[in-house]
Amino acid sequence: MNQTIDTILNHRSIRKFKDTALEKEQIELLVQAAQHTSSSNFLQNYSIIGITDQKKKAQLAKIGNQPYIAESGHLFVMVADLHRNEAIAKEFEKDTSVLQSADRYLVAHTDAVLAAQTILIAAESMGLGGVFLGSLLNNAAEVISILELPTHTFPVLGIAVGYPDQEPQLKPRLPMEQIYHENTYNIQPQPVDSLKEYDATVSEYYDLRNANTRIDTFTNQAAKSMDAKNPTRMRLLEFLHQQDLFKS
Amino acid sequence: MNQTIDTILNHRSIRKFKDTALEKEQIELLVQAAQHTSSSNFLQNYSIIGITDQKKKAQLAKIGNQPYIAESGHLFVMVADLHRNEAIAKEFEKDTSVLQSADRYLVAHTDAVLAAQTILIAAESMGLGGVFLGSLLNNAAEVISILELPTHTFPVLGIAVGYPDQEPQLKPRLPMEQIYHENTYNIQPQPVDSLKEYDATVSEYYDLRNANTRIDTFTNQAAKSMDAKNPTRMRLLEFLHQQDLFKS
Repeated sequence: MNQTIDTILNHRSIRKFKDTALEKEQIELLVQAAQHTSSSNFLQNYSIIGITDQKKKAQLAKIGNQPYIAESGHLFVMVADLHRNEAIAKEFEKDTSVLQSADRYLVAHTDAVLAAQTILIAAESMGLGGVFLGSLLNNAAEVISILELPTHTFPVLGIAVGYPDQEPQLKPRLPMEQIYHENTYNIQPQPVDSLKEYDATVSEYYDLRNANTRIDTFTNQAAKSMDAKNPTRMRLLEFLHQQDLFKS
Repeated sequence: MNQTIDTILNHRSIRKFKDTALEKEQIELLVQAAQHTSSSNFLQNYSIIGITDQKKKAQLAKIGNQPYIAESGHLFVMVADLHRNEAIAKEFEKDTSVLQSADRYLVAHTDAVLAAQTILIAAESMGLGGVFLGSLLNNAAEVISILELPTHTFPVLGIAVGYPDQEPQLKPRLPMEQIYHENTYNIQPQPVDSLKEYDATVSEYYDLRNANTRIDTFTNQAAKSMDAKNPTRMRLLEFLHQQDLFKS
């Protein structure tokens, strides 16, 4: 087992950080790592916004409803960015209406997410920790306004990175056979029953966890997730349209 | 610089593989690595389909219009998967209509892409190489049919992994200041002019590249990308709707 595999298999999301900001060189190395990620057709349709302004950090922490967003060593927001290449194409007098397609948005979203995972793995290999902040999409319109994102860009997720001030346990994952299929998708005839053992493992994990004890099974969490309908999250398509994205 | 950073900074997409299939243990280690990736609310809304059936490989290679898809040591297709948890929730008699939202699709898509990047980094750390296959979305409906994907699932991208049979040069990335912004999105007042130096570097890269010499600038590629409108790619939103996704 090499160091990279070791880093990956020991991943824990870190939500409590020491009060130490990342050095400029560390931030630059993480961005450089992100930039070496593959991108669709080499078009590099993403941007990264580093948040250093305390007021903006606090605003984003409020949207995400997670105070640790403001307390990390550095905060990145990954952005699906079709604006950069649109501006270039306009100088070439190109029709850029293709950017309104679902296809082009998903390509840019994918570029941004691939780069995000590179940042987290790179950070963990450096002894740092971090967590993805999908919660920024609780209100994409506000994030767009705070970061002054132009049309044809959209916030994808945040990454809080810093020096870990906690040692969470490794969270047990779904059994491999539920995730990995061969050649065709394998539909489980009895989904809840097939996860009985995993449910017990997950309950035990929550039972043993130091803080915020929450005894719950995986299947119960999956079921409950259907009820969570944050009103502004449910307006995501409207916000994409406002950015002139995902219209066709 | 540690081994992980070194692996990341030396990433090249590999499109020519030795005729050696991955061992079962290697495939399982890559899936295990993928499974240790973060997922939104720990819901693990993705699946991985490993393709071993030669006929299916050939069909996918045809859709992607890239023969090397069929020639890799192993082929993964990453799937945004809201079906698994939907089936669980139905046993709990939950209303699952939230799965039609843009929000829930993007969450699942993000889970699948994060796991994809983990697979590629893990593979590269093991001395393997690979390439992402966004080209499978040239015809998402056909991929859905070949892999028998149920409703509330969608193919996201493929990953061809194997033993490299080429040593491509490192592709020069955009200048960091074009990708990385502080606090607010930084709009370039003169996009093409700001990339003059990078355009020269990219042209030189294509000039020096061993095969398929293509002398082109980055800005020209960005502009030309607006013309590429594969008819079935332009129907992606229709295919998402067919899977009961992205409807609201």
